[in-house]
Amino acid sequence: MSARRAVVLLSGGLDSATVLAQARSAGWACHALSVHYGQRHSAELAAAARVAQALGAVEHRVMGVDLAGIGGSALTDPGIAVPESPATGIPSTYVPARNTLLLALALGWAEVLDAEAVFVGVNAVDYSGYPDCRPAFVAAFNEVARLGTRAGIEGQPVEVRAPLVAMTKAQIIQSGIALGVDYAMTVSCYQADAVGAACGRCESCRLRREGFAAAGVPDPTLYRTSFG
Amino acid sequence: MSARRAVVLLSGGLDSATVLAQARSAGWACHALSVHYGQRHSAELAAAARVAQALGAVEHRVMGVDLAGIGGSALTDPGIAVPESPATGIPSTYVPARNTLLLALALGWAEVLDAEAVFVGVNAVDYSGYPDCRPAFVAAFNEVARLGTRAGIEGQPVEVRAPLVAMTKAQIIQSGIALGVDYAMTVSCYQADAVGAACGRCESCRLRREGFAAAGVPDPTLYRTSFG
Repeated sequence: MSARRAVVLLSGGLDSATVLAQARSAGWACHALSVHYGQRHSAELAAAARVAQALGAVEHRVMGVDLAGIGGSALTDPGIAVPESPATGIPSTYVPARNTLLLALALGWAEVLDAEAVFVGVNAVDYSGYPDCRPAFVAAFNEVARLGTRAGIEGQPVEVRAPLVAMTKAQIIQSGIALGVDYAMTVSCYQADAVGAACGRCESCRLRREGFAAAGVPDPTLYRTSFG
Repeated sequence: MSARRAVVLLSGGLDSATVLAQARSAGWACHALSVHYGQRHSAELAAAARVAQALGAVEHRVMGVDLAGIGGSALTDPGIAVPESPATGIPSTYVPARNTLLLALALGWAEVLDAEAVFVGVNAVDYSGYPDCRPAFVAAFNEVARLGTRAGIEGQPVEVRAPLVAMTKAQIIQSGIALGVDYAMTVSCYQADAVGAACGRCESCRLRREGFAAAGVPDPTLYRTSFG
């Protein structure tokens, strides 16, 4: 019997690497998908390629979408600074409708592959407050997947699974360590440099650092400057 | 008072041109969006640019997504023939998760523009049986828009409107004619040639031809071969 197929959204960061390790551990044949949507840096795509190979994905594809053309986020618009202190409300690093777009691309590929599931590493505990990381959003997208696809009408809908959604960052890290994830390969920083070295100061770096501390695991992240 | 803003998905075909004319007639400031997702021909994008200008869109943008890389549809995969007779069930021209993807891109741009609505020309009467053209799909996507965006959380969600969803093709054509749409500018054919001339035989051509006949309006379509 061949393994059940899944598409795994892989950003190159800590969370999605953990999801890939979990899905592999559960026996899924994983087709990793990264999306280049005009992020400021491409170090995270290089990280995604390393992670996909190290964790045994069947294949890794990168799709391009030119969200940079619409701007509206500190992550895609060079005219908006990446904040280095916690925001009130939804921060400027929010990319409009990003997870809807990523899930739409993953859903389309899943249909073509005849895959049963899409795995995504969204998390609504130690997170930046983005609306499209919450369980209610994932549930709503599953309705779209059920009603808007051939798979949903003719057979079994593709199921979007978000196994990290209720975990703390420390729990995520402990889960990944137990599955052999080498987090030194991953890049979480919103403004990593060309080799993937992290700033240590942005919201994403802060959540990651605090996660390693809370997990009692040495932080393997390459930082480009000292901070303290 | 400035006009309310809307993003209008514009394919270059008959339906979306009619939607743009309706939205303009209702006083919306319309930002037209076309998506190049690896369609076999680009004549429809040229048609979209002509239609946007003729019907008074504020601007027209084209975003690129490489769906051709995943294949799975006669419209994006050169290895799958475009059928010329009606299909049973969902036809091979179905593009996996296409409308989910188009709406995700439109939703993101709408958030950046602070637009109140996204208009889309989906239709579930004289249509090809695609699951993502039905009212239930549009309703499900509106939940995603409400729960997955900054606009939905902090203010008023962007509303996806599908004004053609319950109209016959003849009613759509009559509505557009009344609003001054020149359908000679539009391209509906799944396999139009480089100048936009239609095959006259595919499912999309068939629905269009029958619509003009039922509406009692001369068919202005440029066909590249005679048929009968």
